Amino acid sequence: MPLPPGEDMFATAKIGRSLSKAAYKEEEEQLRTALLEAQIAIRERNIPVYLIIAGMEGAGKGGVVNTLDEWLDARGVNVYAFWEESDEEKMRPRAWRFWRAMPRRGEIGVFFGGWYLHPIEERFSGSWDDADLDQCLRGIRELERMLIHDDAIIVKCWYHFSEEVQRKKLKALARSDRSRWKMLPKKSKFSEEYQRFEEVADRVVRSTDIGRAPWHIIEATDHRYRDMTTGRILLREMESALSEAPHPERRVDDSPSNTPTDMLPNAPEARITLLDRIDLEQTIERDDYRRRLAELQAELNDLTWRAYAKKLSTVLVFEGVDAAGKGGAIRRVTQAVDSRLREVISIAAPTDEEKAHHYLWRFWRKVPRAGRMTVFDRSWYGRVLVERVEGFTSQANWARAFLEINDFEHQLTSSGVIVQKFWLQISKDEQLARFKARENTSYKQYKITDEDWRNRERWDDYRDAVNEMLARTSASHAPWNLIAGNDKRFARIQVLETVTKALRTALKARD
Amino acid sequence: MPLPPGEDMFATAKIGRSLSKAAYKEEEEQLRTALLEAQIAIRERNIPVYLIIAGMEGAGKGGVVNTLDEWLDARGVNVYAFWEESDEEKMRPRAWRFWRAMPRRGEIGVFFGGWYLHPIEERFSGSWDDADLDQCLRGIRELERMLIHDDAIIVKCWYHFSEEVQRKKLKALARSDRSRWKMLPKKSKFSEEYQRFEEVADRVVRSTDIGRAPWHIIEATDHRYRDMTTGRILLREMESALSEAPHPERRVDDSPSNTPTDMLPNAPEARITLLDRIDLEQTIERDDYRRRLAELQAELNDLTWRAYAKKLSTVLVFEGVDAAGKGGAIRRVTQAVDSRLREVISIAAPTDEEKAHHYLWRFWRKVPRAGRMTVFDRSWYGRVLVERVEGFTSQANWARAFLEINDFEHQLTSSGVIVQKFWLQISKDEQLARFKARENTSYKQYKITDEDWRNRERWDDYRDAVNEMLARTSASHAPWNLIAGNDKRFARIQVLETVTKALRTALKARD
Repeated sequence: MPLPPGEDMFATAKIGRSLSKAAYKEEEEQLRTALLEAQIAIRERNIPVYLIIAGMEGAGKGGVVNTLDEWLDARGVNVYAFWEESDEEKMRPRAWRFWRAMPRRGEIGVFFGGWYLHPIEERFSGSWDDADLDQCLRGIRELERMLIHDDAIIVKCWYHFSEEVQRKKLKALARSDRSRWKMLPKKSKFSEEYQRFEEVADRVVRSTDIGRAPWHIIEATDHRYRDMTTGRILLREMESALSEAPHPERRVDDSPSNTPTDMLPNAPEARITLLDRIDLEQTIERDDYRRRLAELQAELNDLTWRAYAKKLSTVLVFEGVDAAGKGGAIRRVTQAVDSRLREVISIAAPTDEEKAHHYLWRFWRKVPRAGRMTVFDRSWYGRVLVERVEGFTSQANWARAFLEINDFEHQLTSSGVIVQKFWLQISKDEQLARFKARENTSYKQYKITDEDWRNRERWDDYRDAVNEMLARTSASHAPWNLIAGNDKRFARIQVLETVTKALRTALKARD
Repeated sequence: MPLPPGEDMFATAKIGRSLSKAAYKEEEEQLRTALLEAQIAIRERNIPVYLIIAGMEGAGKGGVVNTLDEWLDARGVNVYAFWEESDEEKMRPRAWRFWRAMPRRGEIGVFFGGWYLHPIEERFSGSWDDADLDQCLRGIRELERMLIHDDAIIVKCWYHFSEEVQRKKLKALARSDRSRWKMLPKKSKFSEEYQRFEEVADRVVRSTDIGRAPWHIIEATDHRYRDMTTGRILLREMESALSEAPHPERRVDDSPSNTPTDMLPNAPEARITLLDRIDLEQTIERDDYRRRLAELQAELNDLTWRAYAKKLSTVLVFEGVDAAGKGGAIRRVTQAVDSRLREVISIAAPTDEEKAHHYLWRFWRKVPRAGRMTVFDRSWYGRVLVERVEGFTSQANWARAFLEINDFEHQLTSSGVIVQKFWLQISKDEQLARFKARENTSYKQYKITDEDWRNRERWDDYRDAVNEMLARTSASHAPWNLIAGNDKRFARIQVLETVTKALRTALKARD
């Protein structure tokens, strides 16, 4: 129900519509049956469903959920209320708690208030101004678009009623034991608060009423009308999604076709940029290396303890061509960091729980707690590297991933996490030499597989993908560091210097 | 290395053994290769490995881990340090944090201090006495036995050295920036503290030196000797486990063959107990039902808010024959509880992440935070019901599960969680009537499958399994409640009365 701007969108929820018990009973069996069939189809088609239940205090959101509990097959329905934050949630970017609760493909996640509860409360309480609110709502639009592109169905219901009705309902609630926890605003303040809440709601609903995830304003005066309407809407949304095999719209908007061509891999500027600029022959003397390594590791250990004290988190991303020396560089970092402060995540094939979610879910799972460091040995960039080059995902998916990845990293850095990304590059000859060396060193043979040789044949395709990745995802807040890797020692020192510098700078900024 | 009681087990760690750089280098390549081969075999055989790194302050446990990081394939090795507890951990039984970190089958979990760090610190600091310590160590033995029965390899290394050596090491550490966080005991106190720590260590190591998970005392005076010895031990343990296809010992001890025969299903006493004692014909009048339901739900809502305030958690387990009315009974409970305070877990087939862990892992994942309620619609009892009757697991496994389940529930209740278990029983005729009704009600058809009919044919096998389950797992702290289900309304009232009573009693006890 997209709303014509200007008119009072909530007017439709103050008509006093109701449904008789008879009419309700008559429709219920048929609706239940249809809902269950749709739920089964959703499961078979692996479509995740997000049902967001939001609206006025006293509208009986809990009642809606209880009715749906009864109508739907409980297996595959999960209800989440984003209420108090645990400290593990406080210690990470805000979105982490939502990612924790994302439904698996084929399941229905019922989100109480969803990502709307917090901004509405902050604005209503006055601790946010409109600008804060709008910024948060932009983020929400991004998130919902991303989920829709991942073939999710998002059904957003807003429950509303007139001031008089709310006054009655809250009084009744306040009387009954079962809701004594709900507090009734002071009589005098009531009108004023109703008005102010409605203004906030209006701003929130209007600016998040996006095409594929529209708001449904539902009058909550009568509980039967409220529940039946919710059921009808949920059914309609599921059925329409099922009728369209992956919806075209979901694929088009946001796809970066309209991005400056000089960032596209085949533009001549791209061909000569970045990777080719690295002087791979840079080296360091063995003795200098030993000295610098000791200095830098000592400083890093000290810095990570200070970062821990200041609750400053770090995310390090290591990508690079095969045999570029990622493992060795990572170990030189982890050797210096107390193992209680860091975790190394080696990205292998996703588990089925990971496959059952958006591809960023598995990385959100690993976002470090405040003061800790997480090192990713390969990362979310697989989406625009191996998945792109090997054709594991559609052009639309990897093309859109640049936007999604930038947004993800922005959420990390804007919550104060240090993000440093390393691309380790070696020459094609050096790679060949290392492959051979691995084959000849017993304890390194496990590292070299036919796949490495296959990837090597696609050297140029990877180079193009890497160039575009570097161009599209380098940001001052989450920079790519190109590391010349032909000399392993030189590369390790470069990495350690970058990490220590980033920590030193961030810590200074916090003093 | 099981230790003859009486003699000083740590004497072997004060000899001053060391390894020359040359000898180290010479052995290293061969050891690395063998370790990698073993690691690959472990992965193929899906054997989980627990490596516990514990011992004296300053022994360089971090150094051991860094060396292993280098020797092993980082993919499939996860390092965990059980240090500060997050509040999500504090809000649950202590073991929850370990279950969070359990390695997947085929992977190696390196546990810094593991479950030994906490008891040693508590006893050393004097906040525990020997009795507290011994009780905790008993729990550790249970846990390790359970993991071993699940085919895990547990390698426990204790790093130790003489007082003089420790004095030197700690001084050095205190000087170097990299460990400024480590504190050196006052000179005067040093000997005394060394002695006291060794006494605690002695008690801990001796009483957890169990057959299949022995302690290895490793002298940490020389880092090369320390690391090489660790590598050798890890290799030997992995190889010996690989050489024995599932080890006999792992299957026998603990298996309840020696339990009183009157608890075995075929004893005549068992046949007539429990299930047959329920009077299935009990009923309640529709009007009484309406009144009681309203009263009990109102009280339950109130009780759950008070439990939330008191951080009192509740776990409800619902099991029963097919069509006994579990879903309806659960909904009458959840309708009364604010959705922010409760979660319903419907147990379906395990995901592959769940399959890759001990069968209790998926339930540990769902243990409620303090003040919340988790309702399990089917549960860990599947192990001794469907898995037993359908032969999905070995006799040894389900027979041992009684012990494991009792231990699991004891950990919940002893940490203050309310545990109430419900068995919903209906007569065979009533079940038939309900199956037919389901087939004739469009929105209930999804609930009735061929499997239900198959289970029905095994009615007697299930009855025996249920009788034994009830006999073996009823405890005053985690009781089974047998619910007469032929009258759904009667059953729901029984459930609500039990839950409210349990909450009321527990809350009173806390006043």
